[in-house]
Amino acid sequence: MIVKEKFTLNESSDVYPSRGGRKAQLIERQDPVLYAKNVDNSPIDDALVSQYEEQGFLVLENVFNDSEVGYFRQELERLRKIDELRWAEGTITEAGSGDIRSVFKIHEISSVFNKLASDVRLAGLAQYLLADNVYIHQSRVNYKPGFRGKEFYWHSDFETWHVEDGMPRMRALSMSITLTANHSYNGPLMLIPGSHRYYAVCEGETPAEHYRFSLKKQECGVPDDGCLQQLVDLGGIVTATGKPGSVIVFDCNVMHGSNSNITPLPRSNAFFVYNAISNRVVEPYGGNPPRPEYLGARTHCKPITPQTHHYTTYE
Amino acid sequence: MIVKEKFTLNESSDVYPSRGGRKAQLIERQDPVLYAKNVDNSPIDDALVSQYEEQGFLVLENVFNDSEVGYFRQELERLRKIDELRWAEGTITEAGSGDIRSVFKIHEISSVFNKLASDVRLAGLAQYLLADNVYIHQSRVNYKPGFRGKEFYWHSDFETWHVEDGMPRMRALSMSITLTANHSYNGPLMLIPGSHRYYAVCEGETPAEHYRFSLKKQECGVPDDGCLQQLVDLGGIVTATGKPGSVIVFDCNVMHGSNSNITPLPRSNAFFVYNAISNRVVEPYGGNPPRPEYLGARTHCKPITPQTHHYTTYE
Repeated sequence: MIVKEKFTLNESSDVYPSRGGRKAQLIERQDPVLYAKNVDNSPIDDALVSQYEEQGFLVLENVFNDSEVGYFRQELERLRKIDELRWAEGTITEAGSGDIRSVFKIHEISSVFNKLASDVRLAGLAQYLLADNVYIHQSRVNYKPGFRGKEFYWHSDFETWHVEDGMPRMRALSMSITLTANHSYNGPLMLIPGSHRYYAVCEGETPAEHYRFSLKKQECGVPDDGCLQQLVDLGGIVTATGKPGSVIVFDCNVMHGSNSNITPLPRSNAFFVYNAISNRVVEPYGGNPPRPEYLGARTHCKPITPQTHHYTTYE
Repeated sequence: MIVKEKFTLNESSDVYPSRGGRKAQLIERQDPVLYAKNVDNSPIDDALVSQYEEQGFLVLENVFNDSEVGYFRQELERLRKIDELRWAEGTITEAGSGDIRSVFKIHEISSVFNKLASDVRLAGLAQYLLADNVYIHQSRVNYKPGFRGKEFYWHSDFETWHVEDGMPRMRALSMSITLTANHSYNGPLMLIPGSHRYYAVCEGETPAEHYRFSLKKQECGVPDDGCLQQLVDLGGIVTATGKPGSVIVFDCNVMHGSNSNITPLPRSNAFFVYNAISNRVVEPYGGNPPRPEYLGARTHCKPITPQTHHYTTYE
C-alpha cells in the first residue's frame, strides 16, 4: 500500500521532507517530470520524450561515435594518472583497495569534459526537458573497477540534493555517458521505472560531514525495504545495458543503484547533473551546513550555452 | 599467455597443487570432463552432453514443474523457521545482517531434500556424466536475500575440495536447482565457459579452520586477477538466468561466482555435489586437518540409487 500524502504547497514549508526523525514512506511527487510545453522543438522523438516522462529515464544509444568515445577514454586515463588528483578533495577512492572510484567537478578540471558538458546532444536535451536554462550542479567520472567494484545501494539523487545541498524542487536531471560496455554482469545501472513519481522519505539523521563517507558507503538517505518493495512491485527493474557512447538520461528522483562488479570488465562513465537555473540551491533542507562546492554547485552556476562540438584526436 | 605445464602422473605427487607458497598460474586439467563412453544411454540430448563437455556447465530448463518447485520452497521456508537450525554448525549467516545464507547437509536433515538428492533427473544424470556410482560430497540450500545479498567471489570448487577436503581428481559435479527466478540483476550465478579445462593455482596459505570464515568471505583459494582475465578472454562470461525449476549442472572445476543482490528479489536454490565413488576423499592435499563432515563428506559416502519420485503436496 502506497501512502499518498498531499502536502499543502506553502513556500515556507518543506514539500519534500526526509530524515530528521521522519518515518519511511512514499509521498507523491509535487513537480512535473517534463517541463517542456512545445513538442515541436524537441531534439529527440516524441515517443522518447513520453517514455522519459513515464519511466523517469531513457537510454539513448549511439549518441557518441567510437572515435569520440576513444577521445573521452583517453582523457579518463590521463586523469587517472595524475598523482595529485588522487589526493584531491574531489576524488573518491574505493574503501578497500584505494583505487580511484570517482573524480568530481571534471567539467572544471578537464577541458575535454568541459566541452562535453556543453555538447548540444546533452545540454540541449537537458534544456528542452527542463524548459529552462541549465547549469551543472555536479559532474564526475566514475571508474567502477573490475574484480572488486563495489555496489551502490538504491537511492534517489534528489533526496540527498534536497536535504544536504538545498535543491528546492525536482527540476534537474542526470546524464551518464557510458565509456565502456555496460553488460548485465559488470555492475550496470539499475533503475526502477515510475519510481520518480514518488518521493521516498528516508529514516535516520544526517551525521555531520556525512558526505565524507556517504560516497563510499551510504548510511543515511537510504530508502527502506518496504518502500523499495512497493516501487519494484509497481515498476519492476530495468538494467541499462549497452555499448560505449550511449547516454542514460534520468530524472533527479528516479530510484537507482548498481550491484557489485567481480568481473574483470571495468565500467566507466562521465556524469553530468543539469539543474534548471530557476531551481538553484538554497540553504540545505536538512539543516546541516551544505556539502562542498564540488558535490553541489552553489556559486559556480553559470548557465550553459549548448554548442555543437567537433572532437579532434587527443594529443 | 596461458602457462601450460605438464605434470608427470605420479601417484605420490599432487597433480593439482595450490597455495602453500605457489605462484598463481593456469595449468592444464589432467582429467576428463565427460567420463561416459556410451552415448546410447544418455538421459539428455547428445548436443547437451557435448555442450557440458565443452563449456563445463549446462542450464537445463523446466526440469521441475511449478508444483514441485512449490513443494521444495515450502520446505525451504520450514527450514528457515527452525530456530535451532539458525545456530547449528552447518548453518551460515550473512556477515552483516545475521540472516541465514546457507544450510548444509540438507539431504540428511530434510526428508524432502533427501528424496530430491536421489531424484533420477539429478542423480541419474550425474551417474551418467561421471560414469560411476555417485554419493553426495556436499549439499546445501542457499538463501541469497534481497536488498543485502552479498557477492560470492570467483572460485573453482575443486580447488577447495582438493586442498581442504582431499578430493583426489576432477570427477565430481554440482547441480543447482533454482527455487526462485534468476534474473540478470538479482545476483545470478556467473560462469566462465571453458575455464574447467584449466586449474587456477592460487597464492597464499590456508589459515587454520579457514572454513569458519571462508564461507562468509573467501580470503584464500582466490584465483588472481591475471588468471581470471585470461579465462574470461578465452571464454567470456555466461549468466545463468531462468525461471524456478531449472537445473544448472556444472563441473567441479568451472570458475564461477556471483555479484551482490541489492534488488528486493531473493534468490534461493538447492545444491548437491555428486562425487564419483572411485574419487572418495583422502587426506587434504593442503596438509591441514580436513573440514567438517557437513562441508565435505568423509564417512557418509553411501552410493545413491537414482529413483523416480513423485512429490505430493506438502503438509
